[in-house]
Amino acid sequence: MAKSDAIPAPTVRRLSLYLRQLELYRETGLRTVSSKQLGESLQLTDAQVRKDLAVFGHLGHPGIGYRVEEMIGRIRRILGTDRVWNVALVGAGNLGRAFASYRGFITKGFNITAVFDADPSKIGTVMPGADPVVVQPVSELAATIGLRNIDLAILAVPMSDAQAIADQCMQAGISGILNFAPMALRVAPGATIINVDLAVHLEQLSFRVCELRR
Amino acid sequence: MAKSDAIPAPTVRRLSLYLRQLELYRETGLRTVSSKQLGESLQLTDAQVRKDLAVFGHLGHPGIGYRVEEMIGRIRRILGTDRVWNVALVGAGNLGRAFASYRGFITKGFNITAVFDADPSKIGTVMPGADPVVVQPVSELAATIGLRNIDLAILAVPMSDAQAIADQCMQAGISGILNFAPMALRVAPGATIINVDLAVHLEQLSFRVCELRR
Repeated sequence: MAKSDAIPAPTVRRLSLYLRQLELYRETGLRTVSSKQLGESLQLTDAQVRKDLAVFGHLGHPGIGYRVEEMIGRIRRILGTDRVWNVALVGAGNLGRAFASYRGFITKGFNITAVFDADPSKIGTVMPGADPVVVQPVSELAATIGLRNIDLAILAVPMSDAQAIADQCMQAGISGILNFAPMALRVAPGATIINVDLAVHLEQLSFRVCELRR
Repeated sequence: MAKSDAIPAPTVRRLSLYLRQLELYRETGLRTVSSKQLGESLQLTDAQVRKDLAVFGHLGHPGIGYRVEEMIGRIRRILGTDRVWNVALVGAGNLGRAFASYRGFITKGFNITAVFDADPSKIGTVMPGADPVVVQPVSELAATIGLRNIDLAILAVPMSDAQAIADQCMQAGISGILNFAPMALRVAPGATIINVDLAVHLEQLSFRVCELRR
């Protein structure tokens, strides 16, 4: 296997897309797939697919293509989702409550095991979800993260609080933060932050609709 | 300008990233930027940046680079976000309520002008947001979409309802749907659907954390 730090960021983004498509294939009972089929499903050239999948060595079998189950396992190992991650959710507002019950997280190995909020009226309430969790005050964040072996945090807090909360998380030992406040956050050494802008999806939709009308 | 249907899907995805980065540059007062600077901010090679931006003709100025303001305008025209889109939101649950008040949508030209839900206890309630909207029953979806010149819909409904709601939207004249139910939906001719899987962001985070530890 190639060293993973040699994998370019755009390829890593596409690995998630391949994984999702392969899981769909598995659901329909398909056991092997060609780079051409994968590419067509994802609007990529088959050359791109082959190049991306070559990052973890030869996997295509001549005359057979890629084995769906084998590929799913390999991509999950690369992405680090062949294990369960304990995740802290900060922010028990509308977005936070939606995440707590989002089925897509738990089926992919992300387990929200602690929820924090600064609002006294939310503390002590139970969040929805497969494994209901009681909302704790933000003051308990550091101690809880250490005790429960939590590595990742999802921030669903107002923009004005996001940097301070991120700093507290990183000081408490969180390695990775997914930030949904529409702003870029400063990251501490030894940690990583992904800033998600939900409007990007609407922009892609807008482009496609314009294209349909041309 | 090249015909937009000649722009490959991965390039379109990167245009959103360039736009976001250019808007950040603008906030800091930067007026010109090189392909190298843009690439470094987004973990892309400068060759990739130049290739992507060449899709809408020569824009780099020798010895100056790209003009930030000019580029923002060009990319917004390509993406179709140089205008305001009226958007219908279906689903007034936690995710829907979060979207209704998400600042990133309105600042990018996406205006949620109607909200629908099937739950009688939600109908008639007021959604949060810049421009508060009253929740209507799904039975009013078709008539409202026609009356209010709505082109796009965001689906924040349970998986079991998503396909039926998407079909109703497309029959009512919606051209583009952003679907947050973690499943792929069938699309009617003349329309387009983007299925968003929020777990993808967590997978990218997981990869980066694993990389930090290697």
